[in-house]
Amino acid sequence: MGIIQPRLPKGMRDVLPAQMVLRQHVLSIVEGVFAEFGFEPLITPAIELSEILFGKYGTDAEKLFFMVEHPGGKEKLALRYDLSVPLSRVVAQYPDLPKPFRRYQIAPVWRAERPQHGRYREFYQCDADIVGSASMLADAEIIALIYTILRRVGFEQFVTLINNRKILAGLGQYCGVPAEQTPQLHRAIDKLEKIGLDGVREELRKAGLAESTADRLLELLRPAGGPQLGLADLRRALAGYPIALQGIDELEELLQYLPALGVADGFYRVDLAMVRGLDYYTGPIYETLVEKPRIGSITGGGRFDGLVARFSAQSYPATGTTIGIERIMDVVEELNMLPSAVGQTAVQVLVTVFEPGLLQDSLRLVAELRNAGLRCELYYHADPLGAQIRYALKKGVPFVVIAGPDEVAAGRVTVRNLRQKEQVQVERSELAGMIRKQLADSRQQ
Amino acid sequence: MGIIQPRLPKGMRDVLPAQMVLRQHVLSIVEGVFAEFGFEPLITPAIELSEILFGKYGTDAEKLFFMVEHPGGKEKLALRYDLSVPLSRVVAQYPDLPKPFRRYQIAPVWRAERPQHGRYREFYQCDADIVGSASMLADAEIIALIYTILRRVGFEQFVTLINNRKILAGLGQYCGVPAEQTPQLHRAIDKLEKIGLDGVREELRKAGLAESTADRLLELLRPAGGPQLGLADLRRALAGYPIALQGIDELEELLQYLPALGVADGFYRVDLAMVRGLDYYTGPIYETLVEKPRIGSITGGGRFDGLVARFSAQSYPATGTTIGIERIMDVVEELNMLPSAVGQTAVQVLVTVFEPGLLQDSLRLVAELRNAGLRCELYYHADPLGAQIRYALKKGVPFVVIAGPDEVAAGRVTVRNLRQKEQVQVERSELAGMIRKQLADSRQQ
Repeated sequence: MGIIQPRLPKGMRDVLPAQMVLRQHVLSIVEGVFAEFGFEPLITPAIELSEILFGKYGTDAEKLFFMVEHPGGKEKLALRYDLSVPLSRVVAQYPDLPKPFRRYQIAPVWRAERPQHGRYREFYQCDADIVGSASMLADAEIIALIYTILRRVGFEQFVTLINNRKILAGLGQYCGVPAEQTPQLHRAIDKLEKIGLDGVREELRKAGLAESTADRLLELLRPAGGPQLGLADLRRALAGYPIALQGIDELEELLQYLPALGVADGFYRVDLAMVRGLDYYTGPIYETLVEKPRIGSITGGGRFDGLVARFSAQSYPATGTTIGIERIMDVVEELNMLPSAVGQTAVQVLVTVFEPGLLQDSLRLVAELRNAGLRCELYYHADPLGAQIRYALKKGVPFVVIAGPDEVAAGRVTVRNLRQKEQVQVERSELAGMIRKQLADSRQQ
Repeated sequence: MGIIQPRLPKGMRDVLPAQMVLRQHVLSIVEGVFAEFGFEPLITPAIELSEILFGKYGTDAEKLFFMVEHPGGKEKLALRYDLSVPLSRVVAQYPDLPKPFRRYQIAPVWRAERPQHGRYREFYQCDADIVGSASMLADAEIIALIYTILRRVGFEQFVTLINNRKILAGLGQYCGVPAEQTPQLHRAIDKLEKIGLDGVREELRKAGLAESTADRLLELLRPAGGPQLGLADLRRALAGYPIALQGIDELEELLQYLPALGVADGFYRVDLAMVRGLDYYTGPIYETLVEKPRIGSITGGGRFDGLVARFSAQSYPATGTTIGIERIMDVVEELNMLPSAVGQTAVQVLVTVFEPGLLQDSLRLVAELRNAGLRCELYYHADPLGAQIRYALKKGVPFVVIAGPDEVAAGRVTVRNLRQKEQVQVERSELAGMIRKQLADSRQQ
């Protein structure tokens, strides 16, 4: 039998233990905040029936589906493309789930996109949604959730842009855009920050919308080319359009909850030109830009009261967000945002073996430290101590424990802190407590 | 657009939040012990190249593969069938990984088996392996790992059966079985506990092995139909078979490490008739039977020094185990092995809304409790208090917090413990600490 070259499919990757340290650090923060906000986890299978997935994302997306089959199987199957459609299926399939249903899901999705740097065909999505409540409190909690997660991960300056699809719908009516051309209007508005007023004017012309439409729109969004209208001015301008007024009401209600939920000033802002790509949003929409470090959009979401309707005659109002967890992990790594105590390995202690005759003592020592909750590795050979310590240094293990004949006889142990380059002898009974204290101290630095 | 019936592919399932509470309880124990033992996590993609997977499991297994393709894709792809072959690929593909490489992986695998009660086509495997060490210390640590996990999950009585493939190879030579018939010999021995001496005799006859083979084998395994030989007697009997003596040496070395590693007497035992199904084991093998509750085999593993050789010219000794985590979760649920504090939801506190005018106070309260690390849900409407409390009861949330006008004026809060059916008023500054203390107390009961 020949040797098979070990390799991965195109666009796939392994996450090796040294990278997992960072992933687990970020994930534990994210999952901790989800739990505090009362979100509960959900697992759905990677494989769904094609009929569940098709017709939800548009034909371009469907070309990227990974199809699945097994010999003799009759079902048409595909790997999930995101976590929103499986959520909608779940809500429809189990009508008895307590409402509001707050669930998060962190799981891989698969898309056969052209592989490029930092983009993979299997990647993790992280979604938090609240299904079964039309209250603006739900939308406010989603924004507070985003705020809490990003602050706790360590981002210093970011802003969640907030808008409302009902205002955008009213804007379309105000400008005289036919309902079926609303998507083109949205796409043009979405580019305002990037291409400026003249660019938007050009986009609207290309979309076949009247010159007067562009004038009305831009005069409203950016009067005299200046800053956006405030909500009070917008309310006067759109007074004749009930859908817009409803959107403004929703926005004002939502905004009034954020300070009490602890979202600090400067971390959110109404942006009437923020549109979000997906068609299915029906109310508030939100998107977070990280400004320091400047890395662009890192969350996106909004209210989607119609999505579950594809699977159920009952209507379920819903709102939620995707958190760009892969992007967050990349940035935390690139910018070295890890606390200094998070190293290249999760292992905290290497227990050495001084000589073969003392192996049993080292075994008892490692069992004791593990029982005390420390993460320990045992060195498997009585190699020269220098070699054992070099192994710990190479792997990044912070503590090395040595039990030579003198130490064993005296009931003591030598501990070397490789980061601080310090070495002390302690009573064996004090060993675990001492290491634990030093680990805690280094976490606070 | 018609409504699409929400349903799952055959043999697939969702894990809803109420079931996730139990899963997370078990997983956090298992992952905690892995970490203490210095095992680090690994992620590999769900999709592998077919050439990596095929030819490793036998043709029967290959009929159960889920094949994957995407329009225009040229690679032959399949979903992983287990976690051992991906591990072997990883070890060969990244030769610079520090050795010994201790990794665990808890991840779904896919097999298109006929669905039946409690068996799914997507299920989670949980593997822990040590690659790059031939030391019996590695095998001993795997057995200590199993012991620690099962004890901590709450199993009272179980035994890890230990044997060695080299002893079985020597047994084959001793009985005069040609090398190519060793698998049949193994299968017959494996059934000893189930079908008895006569049954094994019959199996060997059916396999076309000589009558004398059966006699020699059974006289050695069960002299005079009594208990198994001890290792010292076995050593004398197999003195002429070097491979068997090497296996006995390994077994004796391994056994001598277990007490110091904290594995208690009675929780492991040599069983010369325990064989393990897979062909690729080369040394010590182990399998754990849970005896109380009597649920049978729950872990299986052993040394497989040759598996990585399929992908690399370099040889990598390796040992490890699969832990039947789905089975463990089922049993923990069926037998109610959960601590009483683990309920049907992870949410610990429901913050109620007394009346619309006090909503802002409830928002501030929920933000405070979350900042204190408590898992809180906010009720979204100023419904009658009775309805809000019924919601908490239905969902299984243990604490309800009420801030009515009198409480708000006095800087106090009412807390109702729904499990203890007690209600007290406390200073707002003491609220989080009080709830945390009561949660800790109930965990200790």
